[in-house]
Amino acid sequence: MSARTIRIVSLSEMTHGQEGDLFALMSSKEELTTREGKPYFRVGFRDAGREVVFPVWGDSPWAEECRRSWTPGVFYKLRAVYRDTSYGPQLEVRKIREASDADRCDGFDPLMCLAQTRFDREAMFDELLGIARHKIPGEPLSRLVQSILARYRAELLDCPAARRHHHAFVGGLLEHTLSVTRNCVFLAERYADYYPDMRPPLDVGMVVAGAILHDIGKLREIGGGLAEIAYTPEGELLGHLLLGRDMLREAAAETPVDAETLLRLEHVIIAHQRLAEWGSPKPPMTPEALIVHYADDLDAKYHMVYTALKEDNNPGPLTSNKNILRQRFFRGGG
Amino acid sequence: MSARTIRIVSLSEMTHGQEGDLFALMSSKEELTTREGKPYFRVGFRDAGREVVFPVWGDSPWAEECRRSWTPGVFYKLRAVYRDTSYGPQLEVRKIREASDADRCDGFDPLMCLAQTRFDREAMFDELLGIARHKIPGEPLSRLVQSILARYRAELLDCPAARRHHHAFVGGLLEHTLSVTRNCVFLAERYADYYPDMRPPLDVGMVVAGAILHDIGKLREIGGGLAEIAYTPEGELLGHLLLGRDMLREAAAETPVDAETLLRLEHVIIAHQRLAEWGSPKPPMTPEALIVHYADDLDAKYHMVYTALKEDNNPGPLTSNKNILRQRFFRGGG
Amino acid sequence: MSARTIRIVSLSEMTHGQEGDLFALMSSKEELTTREGKPYFRVGFRDAGREVVFPVWGDSPWAEECRRSWTPGVFYKLRAVYRDTSYGPQLEVRKIREASDADRCDGFDPLMCLAQTRFDREAMFDELLGIARHKIPGEPLSRLVQSILARYRAELLDCPAARRHHHAFVGGLLEHTLSVTRNCVFLAERYADYYPDMRPPLDVGMVVAGAILHDIGKLREIGGGLAEIAYTPEGELLGHLLLGRDMLREAAAETPVDAETLLRLEHVIIAHQRLAEWGSPKPPMTPEALIVHYADDLDAKYHMVYTALKEDNNPGPLTSNKNILRQRFFRGGG
Amino acid sequence: MSARTIRIVSLSEMTHGQEGDLFALMSSKEELTTREGKPYFRVGFRDAGREVVFPVWGDSPWAEECRRSWTPGVFYKLRAVYRDTSYGPQLEVRKIREASDADRCDGFDPLMCLAQTRFDREAMFDELLGIARHKIPGEPLSRLVQSILARYRAELLDCPAARRHHHAFVGGLLEHTLSVTRNCVFLAERYADYYPDMRPPLDVGMVVAGAILHDIGKLREIGGGLAEIAYTPEGELLGHLLLGRDMLREAAAETPVDAETLLRLEHVIIAHQRLAEWGSPKPPMTPEALIVHYADDLDAKYHMVYTALKEDNNPGPLTSNKNILRQRFFRGGG
Amino acid sequence: MSARTIRIVSLSEMTHGQEGDLFALMSSKEELTTREGKPYFRVGFRDAGREVVFPVWGDSPWAEECRRSWTPGVFYKLRAVYRDTSYGPQLEVRKIREASDADRCDGFDPLMCLAQTRFDREAMFDELLGIARHKIPGEPLSRLVQSILARYRAELLDCPAARRHHHAFVGGLLEHTLSVTRNCVFLAERYADYYPDMRPPLDVGMVVAGAILHDIGKLREIGGGLAEIAYTPEGELLGHLLLGRDMLREAAAETPVDAETLLRLEHVIIAHQRLAEWGSPKPPMTPEALIVHYADDLDAKYHMVYTALKEDNNPGPLTSNKNILRQRFFRGGG
Amino acid sequence: MSARTIRIVSLSEMTHGQEGDLFALMSSKEELTTREGKPYFRVGFRDAGREVVFPVWGDSPWAEECRRSWTPGVFYKLRAVYRDTSYGPQLEVRKIREASDADRCDGFDPLMCLAQTRFDREAMFDELLGIARHKIPGEPLSRLVQSILARYRAELLDCPAARRHHHAFVGGLLEHTLSVTRNCVFLAERYADYYPDMRPPLDVGMVVAGAILHDIGKLREIGGGLAEIAYTPEGELLGHLLLGRDMLREAAAETPVDAETLLRLEHVIIAHQRLAEWGSPKPPMTPEALIVHYADDLDAKYHMVYTALKEDNNPGPLTSNKNILRQRFFRGGG
Repeated sequence: MSARTIRIVSLSEMTHGQEGDLFALMSSKEELTTREGKPYFRVGFRDAGREVVFPVWGDSPWAEECRRSWTPGVFYKLRAVYRDTSYGPQLEVRKIREASDADRCDGFDPLMCLAQTRFDREAMFDELLGIARHKIPGEPLSRLVQSILARYRAELLDCPAARRHHHAFVGGLLEHTLSVTRNCVFLAERYADYYPDMRPPLDVGMVVAGAILHDIGKLREIGGGLAEIAYTPEGELLGHLLLGRDMLREAAAETPVDAETLLRLEHVIIAHQRLAEWGSPKPPMTPEALIVHYADDLDAKYHMVYTALKEDNNPGPLTSNKNILRQRFFRGGG
Repeated sequence: MSARTIRIVSLSEMTHGQEGDLFALMSSKEELTTREGKPYFRVGFRDAGREVVFPVWGDSPWAEECRRSWTPGVFYKLRAVYRDTSYGPQLEVRKIREASDADRCDGFDPLMCLAQTRFDREAMFDELLGIARHKIPGEPLSRLVQSILARYRAELLDCPAARRHHHAFVGGLLEHTLSVTRNCVFLAERYADYYPDMRPPLDVGMVVAGAILHDIGKLREIGGGLAEIAYTPEGELLGHLLLGRDMLREAAAETPVDAETLLRLEHVIIAHQRLAEWGSPKPPMTPEALIVHYADDLDAKYHMVYTALKEDNNPGPLTSNKNILRQRFFRGGG
Repeated sequence: MSARTIRIVSLSEMTHGQEGDLFALMSSKEELTTREGKPYFRVGFRDAGREVVFPVWGDSPWAEECRRSWTPGVFYKLRAVYRDTSYGPQLEVRKIREASDADRCDGFDPLMCLAQTRFDREAMFDELLGIARHKIPGEPLSRLVQSILARYRAELLDCPAARRHHHAFVGGLLEHTLSVTRNCVFLAERYADYYPDMRPPLDVGMVVAGAILHDIGKLREIGGGLAEIAYTPEGELLGHLLLGRDMLREAAAETPVDAETLLRLEHVIIAHQRLAEWGSPKPPMTPEALIVHYADDLDAKYHMVYTALKEDNNPGPLTSNKNILRQRFFRGGG
Repeated sequence: MSARTIRIVSLSEMTHGQEGDLFALMSSKEELTTREGKPYFRVGFRDAGREVVFPVWGDSPWAEECRRSWTPGVFYKLRAVYRDTSYGPQLEVRKIREASDADRCDGFDPLMCLAQTRFDREAMFDELLGIARHKIPGEPLSRLVQSILARYRAELLDCPAARRHHHAFVGGLLEHTLSVTRNCVFLAERYADYYPDMRPPLDVGMVVAGAILHDIGKLREIGGGLAEIAYTPEGELLGHLLLGRDMLREAAAETPVDAETLLRLEHVIIAHQRLAEWGSPKPPMTPEALIVHYADDLDAKYHMVYTALKEDNNPGPLTSNKNILRQRFFRGGG
Repeated sequence: MSARTIRIVSLSEMTHGQEGDLFALMSSKEELTTREGKPYFRVGFRDAGREVVFPVWGDSPWAEECRRSWTPGVFYKLRAVYRDTSYGPQLEVRKIREASDADRCDGFDPLMCLAQTRFDREAMFDELLGIARHKIPGEPLSRLVQSILARYRAELLDCPAARRHHHAFVGGLLEHTLSVTRNCVFLAERYADYYPDMRPPLDVGMVVAGAILHDIGKLREIGGGLAEIAYTPEGELLGHLLLGRDMLREAAAETPVDAETLLRLEHVIIAHQRLAEWGSPKPPMTPEALIVHYADDLDAKYHMVYTALKEDNNPGPLTSNKNILRQRFFRGGG
Repeated sequence: MSARTIRIVSLSEMTHGQEGDLFALMSSKEELTTREGKPYFRVGFRDAGREVVFPVWGDSPWAEECRRSWTPGVFYKLRAVYRDTSYGPQLEVRKIREASDADRCDGFDPLMCLAQTRFDREAMFDELLGIARHKIPGEPLSRLVQSILARYRAELLDCPAARRHHHAFVGGLLEHTLSVTRNCVFLAERYADYYPDMRPPLDVGMVVAGAILHDIGKLREIGGGLAEIAYTPEGELLGHLLLGRDMLREAAAETPVDAETLLRLEHVIIAHQRLAEWGSPKPPMTPEALIVHYADDLDAKYHMVYTALKEDNNPGPLTSNKNILRQRFFRGGG
C-alpha cells in the first residue's frame, strides 16, 4: 500500500468504512473492568467537530502501548478506519504516533482539534481594542485598558470562558467579553442619557473598561494549555476575581490612572458576580458595577439556555432538566 | 388687604414670609400626643415639588376642623404664609377649603400637586406604541399589543410603577415600561443576531411584546386614584403577574394570536420576576422570558441606586444603608 | 397446542412457568449496550398489579421488531411464558401485537393495565358532589362548584394527582380531593364553632369549595392520556394553580357568584401551596385559605409516608431514606 | 363622702368620670424622661377586660411611692377616678395599696385581673381526661396519659400556651391542647380508616396521647406565676420539647408502658415542631408524629390569624402586617 | 499438604500467590447480575488493614453456600490464596467456616479484623479519667464525670464516633473525645485567664466536663456490635444529644451536683452542635457551651480534611471534591 | 476664683457637683427638635472611662457655638460642673476650647479619652514579634512576618479590631491578633503531633503566620484616626481580606518566600471568614486555613459573649437578646 493512497482527512468528515490519516487530540482515557473482571481501556479522540470514544480490549495489539504511553491532552497522528456502529462511532487504529511540529507542513494545527468560537478571533480582538480606544472617554483609563489588552493578546485569543459553565471553548473568553462589552456600551450610554442628573454622573468609560476587564483574571485562573482546561492553584485558592484585580493593578503601576478611578475599576471586577455565594466578596456598590453585573450575567445565562436547547434530545415540547441550569426549557411545538 | 393682592402661587416656589393662595394635596395626617399627653395633629401638604409637614396644636383655630374633616388624599385651596424655620418649612394657614372643578379656571390641576415623571407622558406613550408597531414583526402579535396599549392608554399615562420600590410617581409605570422596552429591543436584536442557529430562533417580537406588557397588571394591582397609591384587593390576593396575564387573555379573546404565541407571552409575564420569593410561580423557561427579566431587573435596580444616591445625605464618600436596597453605595470624593 | 389451551390471564396472577395470553401496557423501553459494546433493549410491561422488566438481546427473534415499533404507552396483547428467576420476573414472548378495541370482547380494558385508586371512582365523585350540594351554605357558590364538577366529571374520574409525588395513579386526583375535602368539612365546622366572634366569620362554604377546587388545574397541567403521565406545555409554563383559577373563572362567567366571593376562592386556589418555593405566588391571606393549605399538605404528606413504608424493603426497624421525602421512617419492631 | 358611697367596681366597666374602688394588676412600669429631661413614670393597671396606661409625673403626689414600691406583677386595691381622654383611658389615683387575701371577702380574685380563656377550664380539663379515657385503646397508654393529666391538673388549668405567640392567657395551654386533641381524634380515626393496609397500622391511641402531651413541657418552660409570663432557666436552656419528654418519662417510671410505645410517644413530643429551626431535633419519623404536627401547627396559626384580624385597626379591606405573622390578611368589604 | 505447612497469617500481610489460614470479617455481600443477566455475588472480607472484594460466580463451588449462609458482620476462618490482580486484590477460597471462641487460642481476636484507632485505647481512657480528676476543680462535678466514665468504660473503649462522618472506627469516639477535651483544657484555662472580670467567671470545670460528655449519647445512638455500625431506634428517633443528656441525668441521680450545675452541663451537651439544622434544639447560651462547640467542630472537621487528603487519588495539586465535605483541598506541589 | 482652685480632673472620676478642668473627646452631636418643634442639640463627651450625653437648648449660651463649630472626633478642654441627675450624668459647661499639643504639658493625651485594651500594647506587640521569631520554623517565612510587623508597628498599636462587632477599642486589633495567635500556636502544634502522617504535613509556621496576618488588612479598612472609627473607601469597596493580601504581597516583594508558601498564606488570609456570606471568596482549602478560621471565630464570638454579659442589665438569670449576637445568654443565679 503506497502512501499515495492514504489521504490526510479530518476526523469529523470521515464516513463509514473510510480509512485515512488524521490528526486528533486524545481527549480521555479511563481504565475499566468488565463485570467479569477483565480490564480494558475506554479512550477518546477528538477534533473540532467530532469526538469518538471506543474500547481498547486487553487482547488488542494496542493494549500495552495504550496503557503505557497514550496520554490525554496530547495530539496524535493516526491511521485508522472509521465506522458508524450501533454503539456509536468507532475507530479501528492501524498506526498511531504523537504529532509533532514537523506535521504542520502536512496541515497539522492543534486548533483544528479543539472546539472553538464561531467567530474570527483576531477580528473580535480588534473590535474590543477599538471599543477601548473610542468608547472610554478618559484618556488615562483608555490607555490603561488598551495596554492590558495588548499585553495579554495571545492568551485572550485562546482562553475559554470557563471549564464547564459557559463559553467553554477556544476563544470563548474573548467572545463572551466582547458580547458583554457590546451590551455595556449600549446600556451605559442609555442610562447616562436617561439620568443626566445623577451625582456623580454615570462614568460610561468605567462601565466599558469594567466590561472589558471583568473576567481577565480567568487568564490566570484557567491553565493547562489549549488541550485541557484546568484550574491553576491560584485559580482554586484565590479565584479569578482577585487575580483579575491583580492584573489590573500590575498594569496600572506602569500606565497609571488616578487613585479613585483605579479603586472603582477594581471594585467593578471583584463585585461583578454580585452575590457572596457566587464568589464576590462585595456586592456592586456603584452604578457602573451594577451594569457590568447584569450585562455579564445575562450573557452567561443566555449562552447556557442556548446550549441547553442545542444539546437536549428530549422528545416533545420541553427539554429535560439535564443541563447546566438544572431546569426545563420550552422549545415549543416545532 | 384686598383679594387682588393675593396671587395664586405654587407651594414649591413660595419664599420665606410670602403669603399666597395655593392648591395642595393633603398628603398625611397623624394624631399624636406630646410626652406630656397633649394631643395634636401633624399634617402634610404637598405639590409636585415640595412637601410641608407641620403641627396643628390643640389650641390652633384649625384644631377642630382638622380633626373633623381634613382628609389625606384630598386637594385643598389654602391661603397661607410660608416660613422656612429651623425645624423645616412651615405653613401658617389663614384659609382652607376643598378644591373643586371650578378651581380649574384658576389653574388648579391635580397633577400639579403630585410627583411625576420628568418625561412627557404622551410622547412616551407614542414611542411605546411606535415600538409595538415597528419592532414586533408578527402582525397578529403586534396588533394584539397595540390594542392593549390603546385600551389602557389613560391608566398608563397616570399609573406609578410601585408604591415604594421604584418609579413611585405619576407616569412611573409608563416611564419604566418604555425604558425596559428600549433595553429589550436592543438586546433581542443583538442576541438574535449573535445566535442565528438557536432552535427555535429567538422571537424578537415576543421579547418586545413581553417588555411592553410585563407590568401591565399593575394597572389592576395599584388603585386608589392619583392622589394615593394603594393596592387593590385583587392586587394583594393575586398579584400583578396574574392580573396582567388576565388582561392579556381578555384582549386576546378579541384580537387573537395563535395558541402557542399566547402561551409564551403569558409565560413571559408571569416569569419576569424570576424567583419564587419575588412572586414568580415559574422561572423563565424561554430565552424571551430570560431577556425580559434581566432588562426589567436592571432598570428597577438602577432606579433604586439613582434614588439612593439622590436622597442620601450621609457625609463622606459613601451613602448610608438607609435606602430601599439596604446597602451602602460609593459616591466618591468628587 | 390448540388455542383452546391458552387462557386469557392477568399478568399479575401468572405463576412460574405458566404460559398465557395477556394484555399489558408497555411501560418502558431503553436502548443499552453491554460493557463489551453489544446493543440490546430493556423493556417493561405492566398491568395494574405487576411490572415485568426484561432484556431483549440482539440475537432475540424480537430484536428488530422491538427496535422498530414497540412503543411505551401502547397496550399490547402478548402470548408469553412467565418465569420467576433469580434476577426478577421475566417474560419469554411468543407472540405480540397491539391491542385494539376489538379485544374488549376478550375482556381487554386499558384500566386493568394501570395502577388505580383502591376506591370506587363513581362513588367518590358522587360523595364529592353531595358535599358540594350540602356543605356549601351559599346557593350561588354551591351551584358554581357543582357546575365545575359536572363539567369535568370524566377527566376527574381518571386523572392522577401527580406524576410522581403522591397519588400517582388513575383516580388519584379524585381520591386526594375527596380526602382533603372531608378534612376541610370537619375543620371548617370546628373552627367556625370555636371562634364565633371572628370578623368576618369563617366562611365554611368557601373552605369546602376551595378544598374541592384546589387542585382542579391538574386536569390541564397533566396530560398524555391514561397510559402515560406527562405535563402539558401550559402545565409547565404556568402551573396548575393558575390553570385551576382559569377554570374557576370560566365557570363563574356562566354560573356567577359575587365578585368578592370569586376573588376569595381564586385566592384559596393560588395560595394553597403556601410557600413561594412550592409555587404559590401569594401565601394564604384568609383563614379559609389557611385551612385548605393544611388539609391538603397533611393529606399529601401522609400518602408519601404511607408509600415510603409500603415500598421500603430495608431490613430492621427503620426504612431507608430512598423515598420521596428523602427521610427515614420508623416502622418499629413489630 | 362616706365609704358607703364608694362601690367595688370592675375596672373594665367603669365609665367616664366614675370614682370607685377596684382591684387591678400592675402590668407595667417604665421610667422615662420627657425630651426636656424631666423624669416621669408610665404605669399600667389591668383587669381581665381593660388595660389603662397613664403617666405619673414628677410632681404627682404618688411620684415617690411609685418609684420606690409599686411593682409590676403585684395586685393592688385602688380608689380612683376613671376618665376617657383624647389620649386614651386614664386613672386619677386617690388611694392605692397592695391587695391581700383578706380582700377576697370583698370579691378580690387574682383571675379577674388576668386575660383568660373564654371557656370553662374545668370543663375543658374533664373533656380532655374523657378523651384520654375513651379514645386511647391501649389500656397502659391510656392509664399513663390519665396519670399525667391528674398529676398536673392544677398547673394545666392556669398555664398560658406561650408568652406571646398564641393563646397567651390563663388557661391558654389547656384550650390549645384540647383543640389540637379534637383535631387529632378526627384525623387519626379518618386516616386509620383510609389506609387500613398501612404497616404498621396507624396507632390512633398514640396520636391522641401525643396530642394531649405535645406541649406539656410548657408547664416547666413557662414560670413566673399567674401574673407574669416568663421563661424558666430550664425553659430557655433546654426548651419545652425536652422538658415535656422528661415529664413523660418520669410518669412512665411509675405507670409503665412497653419500651417501643414509650419511645414512639417521646418522639411525637420532640418532633412536633417538625423543623429544626423551630426547635425539633428530629423531624416526624412516624405517621403519628406527622398528624400531631399538622394538627398543632394549624391550631396555632389559626389563632394567630384570628388575633391578627381582631387586633388590627387598619382601614380598608386588608389588615396591616403588624402582627405576629408579619403578613397582611384580607378582611374584605363585607 | 499437611496442616503444618499452612500458617495462620494476617490478611493485610499476605503477598501475591501466598496461601494461608486467616481470620476475617465479612464486610459486605451484594447480589448482582451481569448485563447479560447472570446472577453472581460480590463479597467483601476485611481485617484491620485491608479489605478484599471479589466476585463469587454462579458456577463457583461456593455459590450455593455463599447465597445461603454467608452473612455480613460475621467473622470467618478462611483458607485462601491471595492474588494481586489488575482488577484489585482477590481471594481464592479453599475452605471457609465461621470463627468461634475456640479460635481465640489460635490467635483470633475480633478487633484484629476491624479498623481501629491508632492509639492505645486504655491509655486514652486513663488520660481522660486523669483529666476528669485533675482539671475539674469542683469536687461534686469531678466525681460525677468520673462515675460516668467508670460506668461506660467498656463501651467507650470500643465505640466509633460516627457511622460515616468522622472517626468511624473502633475507639473512634474515645479518640475524638480525648482530643476535644485536650483542646478544651487549653482553651478554658486561656479564656478564664484572659477575661478574669467576666461575670459569672468562666467555669473551667464545666468546659472540661462538657468536653468529656458532649458525645456520650453516641453510646446509645450507635448500636449493632463491633462488626457493624448501625443506629439504634432511640438514636434515630431522639438523637445522641438527648440520649447523652439522659445518661448524665441518670448518673446525677446517684452522684448529685447542684441543680444549676446540672442544668448548665445538660445545656452544654444539647447545644454543642450549635445550629438547629445540625440537631441542636438550642444554640450555645453559655461561654462554656461555646468553647465546647468550637473545640468539637474543629476536631471533627480536621479529621475530615485529614481523611480527604489521605483517601484522595486525584492527580495534581488539588484533591477532587468527592469527600465528606464536598469540597476540593489543596495538597500542593511539594 | 483663681486658676489655682480649678484642678485638671479626669471626667470619669468627677463626682456630683464637682467643678473641674478636663480633657474630653466630643463623641456625638445630633440636631433634634422637641415635639413642639424647638430645635436643640444632644451632644456627647467622653474619656476612656465615661461618656456624658446632654442637651444644649436653643437658649443656652453655647447654642450658637455648638451649632457652628463643635465637631465630633475633636478633643476639647472644658471647664464644667458634673452632675448625676435622674436622667443620667450631665455637664454644665463653663468654658470650652479645642485641645492642642500645648496642652500635653498639662497632661493631655488623646488616648486618655478613648476606650482601649486592658493590656500593655507594647508588651503585646513584643510577644507577637517573639512568636513570629520563634514559632515559625521556616526562616524566610519568619522573616517575612517579622518585616510586616515591624513595618506596621505604629498602626497596630492603635487600631481597633472592628467598628462595632468585637474588640472595638484602641489596641483591639493587636489584642485580638495576639489571642488568636496563641490559640493557633497551641492548636497547630497539637494537630501536627496528632496526625504525623498527614500529607503534606501540617505547616505549623503557616498557621502561626496566618494567625498573625489574618486581620492585617483592617489597618487599611479602618481609617479615620484614633478618635473616630470609620471605614475607608477601599475598605468598603474591597474589604480587609483583599487589602490584607495586598499588604502581604507588597512585603513579599521585598522579603521573598517561595511561590507556593506565598500562595498558601494569601489563601489563609482571604479564606479565614470561611463562609461566602461573611465575605470570604473561597472557603478554607488547606488545614492551615481551617485552624486559623476556628481560632479566629472562637476568639471573636467569645468577646461578643463577654460583652453581652457585661453590658446587659436585664434582671433575672438570662440576658436580653439586645446584643451583637441577637441572642439571650444564661448568667445564672449565682
